[in-house]
Amino acid sequence: MTDLQLPRFCSEECRWKKITRDESKEHDAMVTKERRGLHLHRHYHHHVRIFTYEPCGGIVRHARRLEQEIYENPGSLPFQEILYCNLGNPQALGQRPINFFREVLSLCDNPPLIYRDEARALFSPCALKRARKIIESLPGNDSGAYTCSQGVRSLREAVADGIAARDGFPSIPDNIFLTDGASSAINMMMQILIRSHEDGILCPLPEYPLYSGSIILHGGTIVPYNLTEDSGWGLEIFEVKRCLEEARASGLTIRAMVVINPGNPTGQVMSMTNQEEIIELCMKEGLVILADEVYQENVYTENKKFNSFKKVARSLGYDHKEISIVSFHSVSMGYYGECGRRGGYMEICGFGPDVIDEIYKLASLTICPNIAGQILISLVMDPPKLGDEAFEIFMAEKEETCSSLLKRAKALQKAFSSLEGVSCNKFEGAMYLFPRLRLPPLAIKAAEEECVPPDVYYAHRLLNATGIVVVPGSGFHQVSGKFHIRCTILPSKEKITAMVTRLQAFHEAFMDEFRS
Amino acid sequence: MTDLQLPRFCSEECRWKKITRDESKEHDAMVTKERRGLHLHRHYHHHVRIFTYEPCGGIVRHARRLEQEIYENPGSLPFQEILYCNLGNPQALGQRPINFFREVLSLCDNPPLIYRDEARALFSPCALKRARKIIESLPGNDSGAYTCSQGVRSLREAVADGIAARDGFPSIPDNIFLTDGASSAINMMMQILIRSHEDGILCPLPEYPLYSGSIILHGGTIVPYNLTEDSGWGLEIFEVKRCLEEARASGLTIRAMVVINPGNPTGQVMSMTNQEEIIELCMKEGLVILADEVYQENVYTENKKFNSFKKVARSLGYDHKEISIVSFHSVSMGYYGECGRRGGYMEICGFGPDVIDEIYKLASLTICPNIAGQILISLVMDPPKLGDEAFEIFMAEKEETCSSLLKRAKALQKAFSSLEGVSCNKFEGAMYLFPRLRLPPLAIKAAEEECVPPDVYYAHRLLNATGIVVVPGSGFHQVSGKFHIRCTILPSKEKITAMVTRLQAFHEAFMDEFRS
Repeated sequence: MTDLQLPRFCSEECRWKKITRDESKEHDAMVTKERRGLHLHRHYHHHVRIFTYEPCGGIVRHARRLEQEIYENPGSLPFQEILYCNLGNPQALGQRPINFFREVLSLCDNPPLIYRDEARALFSPCALKRARKIIESLPGNDSGAYTCSQGVRSLREAVADGIAARDGFPSIPDNIFLTDGASSAINMMMQILIRSHEDGILCPLPEYPLYSGSIILHGGTIVPYNLTEDSGWGLEIFEVKRCLEEARASGLTIRAMVVINPGNPTGQVMSMTNQEEIIELCMKEGLVILADEVYQENVYTENKKFNSFKKVARSLGYDHKEISIVSFHSVSMGYYGECGRRGGYMEICGFGPDVIDEIYKLASLTICPNIAGQILISLVMDPPKLGDEAFEIFMAEKEETCSSLLKRAKALQKAFSSLEGVSCNKFEGAMYLFPRLRLPPLAIKAAEEECVPPDVYYAHRLLNATGIVVVPGSGFHQVSGKFHIRCTILPSKEKITAMVTRLQAFHEAFMDEFRS
Repeated sequence: MTDLQLPRFCSEECRWKKITRDESKEHDAMVTKERRGLHLHRHYHHHVRIFTYEPCGGIVRHARRLEQEIYENPGSLPFQEILYCNLGNPQALGQRPINFFREVLSLCDNPPLIYRDEARALFSPCALKRARKIIESLPGNDSGAYTCSQGVRSLREAVADGIAARDGFPSIPDNIFLTDGASSAINMMMQILIRSHEDGILCPLPEYPLYSGSIILHGGTIVPYNLTEDSGWGLEIFEVKRCLEEARASGLTIRAMVVINPGNPTGQVMSMTNQEEIIELCMKEGLVILADEVYQENVYTENKKFNSFKKVARSLGYDHKEISIVSFHSVSMGYYGECGRRGGYMEICGFGPDVIDEIYKLASLTICPNIAGQILISLVMDPPKLGDEAFEIFMAEKEETCSSLLKRAKALQKAFSSLEGVSCNKFEGAMYLFPRLRLPPLAIKAAEEECVPPDVYYAHRLLNATGIVVVPGSGFHQVSGKFHIRCTILPSKEKITAMVTRLQAFHEAFMDEFRS
């Protein structure tokens, strides 16, 4: 069997919670030594060293080694391919892109095509028209130039119009920053907000580890609040208040609160009442709301719908001067799933022009976001409308993707729920299931002997036996003693059937192996 | 006249040199106050506040206001358009893209086209073949998925092969990171290398302000070494040694040396002897060489050619374990000029696997570079070859762009040199002229009265009179008392003629106005 090569196990609860401060002290001691000439050289910044990002981390590296092994020695492993369920990466798993979007991108890459008669055989009139409109608004009437660091104005206008149509409240292009995906936008905001390790950011637990990674990298402190698994990963406002007060008592200044809606990795959709409580709290306590709304088009439950935090704040009567909200969105999710394009926006509300200027300056250091991503986010926020020629096909493609996602989610949810000792959250939104594993004591002991957390042990055993890659719950900093895995719902219908069979067989054998 | 709205003048030499430490003290005092509850809130990190990036800075914001004014009140200003000579942004100024590159990008955005008969009327066989090869190597056989955080392996292989062919020394795909342009790669390396303000990075002066910006942002200290204008902006190794020793004596640990070849903003091409001296110095002193080689295809002088630092090091007999070199390249420059795509690579030589792992982890925090940029850098490093059908057209387009660039550079160089009190560097490489202005004492006095550096004053007066945007030399942190402007050579032939007339008329009037 391939060597597990796992990180060291650490049994203390929420080690990562303490990591910034403890490692800071260690680092300071080291720097002092170095100044005295005791140590010659250390290679890299300690923040870089200590942050982790498990969805692309140890288990994925291990999967890539297995993949190489399959390539070099076909038949040497008990499976023929690796099934990457670690990331929400729809098109890698066979999801078809929206044709209209791809046609427009293709034309914008090569604008002379727009004016060629032969192009009518390959591109729809609607795509030709939209591409022409976009190209005419770009610098030099081409798609190859640097744009404004905030993104092309006409594309920001399309995004702002889309937000206004979605929310029923105005949005202005000056408050929109187009970005290389949501990740770089979130990094940028952390860089702006965090001034020292005395600054804390409230984050949900379990959390998408981009947040902890980015906070650690920029030298701040994570202040986690727990989501309640028993109430479908609900957010209890008293729990947030408790964490806020405890953090302040320990000397931290709390700068912002991260909310992920629909949830990642937990897949819940927030109720409006819950959002109102959060807004009132952040208003009262002077916190910036960092609203991760990238799964806004991934809501699958009939009695819930997505509401942006800005919309809820405006509905409560708060205007743009009273509360600071940053909303993040991306072309990677939804029914579009264009991850590799790296497109996104952030809408910045309730900040003064001095802060907007600083964000602009920070964005200008990489000059501008990539143009394909800029164009795509404008299409996502301004897709074909009723009356447009392309509308029917677009809607059919969109609905097919959405209903197929729901079907696959249900199949996987059913499969996980059928496993011994496994309970699976109700799938309301986003792209993941986050089932809880109740593992036998002997399995936990085996994990301890290997010096890894039990969920990491389970995930590696699953990978080694089936080729299925999932992320252990500890990668999302779930509290210790509770074991989960995050698995995307994205594999194709055909693959899900085979996957379920392999998963069930593995789980049964695993439980048998460790039965007392 | 539109209000100048300029930054405050600061007469001390190299204010930016001191900025990190002085502002750090101010910041610390502020944080202490804040902890005592005297200040409630400050919005953003002091590193974000203090760095500057003039090529997209104050003068560009002023130009955008003027542009808006032209749009709203045509005829209200003495010119009809703004000519942005502040950035090397070829396609915004009319440079035609290479067709082969655009065809491949266009096909990769919409892969079903590759297999359609009608596509043969619009795309060359060579582009169809290349696009097919690329698509077949991408995850999910499509261009919409997240890729490996380091970039798609097949595209890294193309880049590595291109480097090996260029240098005559092997390059391996594992050492290549595809990136969203060179800027994000440089930022990533600064984030890795800088551990505290006690870490210094050697940078040329005048410098491309991405370096100072990124160093300040990541909390390090800039250690400038002067280039010698009188020897065509040559690098004198004793000057570098002097700066290194002085910085070490002041308690800094010097981590790396930045070299920009061909030079930006100064346009010189380094001699191999000079590169050898730098390599020997960095070997001896244990410094990482950060080699900005983005203008490697922009060399216009017959008796000089581009040599990568890695090639020179290997030619000296140093292998990959002995010296650490990071080479940055980009799709934004050269004859391709695809700035808005944000594509690039860095080749990392002489680092241990632990450092490579940390760089990978940092890259994974934004998951992957954008796919169009990844594809484009692979095309730039592996363009059509002799024998390929597309070769002749490709070469004709490339040569037309290169010879046109040289002609325009010569016309502008002649124009600047003809101006009273102006001397212009010989144009050897890159995309800029960096003429020196000898301004009359009364002009310097007028600038002081407006509280701005004289070159900023000149650049703003030029903009207000002609609509031409250049970057003042102080934006590149040129030593005070010497006044320069950086002007790109990129405006089209037709525009350059009009530009030269306006420039000459303005300069004459300006000199007359301030003649004693």
